Amino acid sequence: MTETADSTVRAALPSEEAGIERLYSSELANETEFLAARTRSVGSRRANEELASLDLKVRSYSVLSLACSGLNPSQRELAEFLFLDPSQIVALVDSLEKRGAVKRKADPRDRRSNIITPTAAGKKLYAEAAAVVQAAGEGALSALTPEERDQLRDLLRRVAFADQQG
Amino acid sequence: MTETADSTVRAALPSEEAGIERLYSSELANETEFLAARTRSVGSRRANEELASLDLKVRSYSVLSLACSGLNPSQRELAEFLFLDPSQIVALVDSLEKRGAVKRKADPRDRRSNIITPTAAGKKLYAEAAAVVQAAGEGALSALTPEERDQLRDLLRRVAFADQQG
Repeated sequence: MTETADSTVRAALPSEEAGIERLYSSELANETEFLAARTRSVGSRRANEELASLDLKVRSYSVLSLACSGLNPSQRELAEFLFLDPSQIVALVDSLEKRGAVKRKADPRDRRSNIITPTAAGKKLYAEAAAVVQAAGEGALSALTPEERDQLRDLLRRVAFADQQG
Repeated sequence: MTETADSTVRAALPSEEAGIERLYSSELANETEFLAARTRSVGSRRANEELASLDLKVRSYSVLSLACSGLNPSQRELAEFLFLDPSQIVALVDSLEKRGAVKRKADPRDRRSNIITPTAAGKKLYAEAAAVVQAAGEGALSALTPEERDQLRDLLRRVAFADQQG
């Protein structure tokens, strides 16, 4: 009897995906923050795979991107903006500096602090990485129309920065 | 001269927040996946603060929530659904089991696997935690109207589960 019941369940679940799909109906799967985390995880996994060819990961890419923004972020600002520990930022900047992509300079606004600026090689690396990340992002967002992608980005932007704009 | 230039910059930046706000104009701050990560980080920080009173964190809450879903998730499914390593799930389930909130049972669909089910105390804990998380979520989403919150959730749902629904 138990064997038969098991077989029936298996027949209704042709693959592992079919099994896990039932979790989409959970309360958790309707919580916006869970969905934001999962969206990020799906995107990061894809972007990390693609960025591996440039020996970057999403986090080092984020630091490089802000270093190349022309906005002269300090290490403290990078930590705050990226929600990472200062020690994590130091390690990421160290690794980018070691490969000649960024340099630390004294911050004219606060001499106890360093700002992170790109080298010419760092700018080139960022241009390549940004193209890779953009392609990965488009893949991850392929379920949405261009208008819906804009809508999603605008809504997320308002939530993501609500604490500082409110 | 340099001192004067510095003072001018400082005057235009009345607080640390004002300083970091300029990073909102970076390319990174317009990437949907960065925004999803930041939305999650803002929400998690707030939820972790609130959940501390119940000795839970966002991750243990997520496991408890799925255990209480009535959907009988296996440890493997929890790992896949939450994008965590199986070893992380084992540690989270261990800690919830130790405090009497969940139990491991043999999975009728696969005897090599365990499903995670809640105890009565676990269901009560989840009810309290879900209320806390919902309040924290509403705080995090307070920049949006109710319609916009629904819109955001629906768009994220389509992206977060695109890989399995596409």
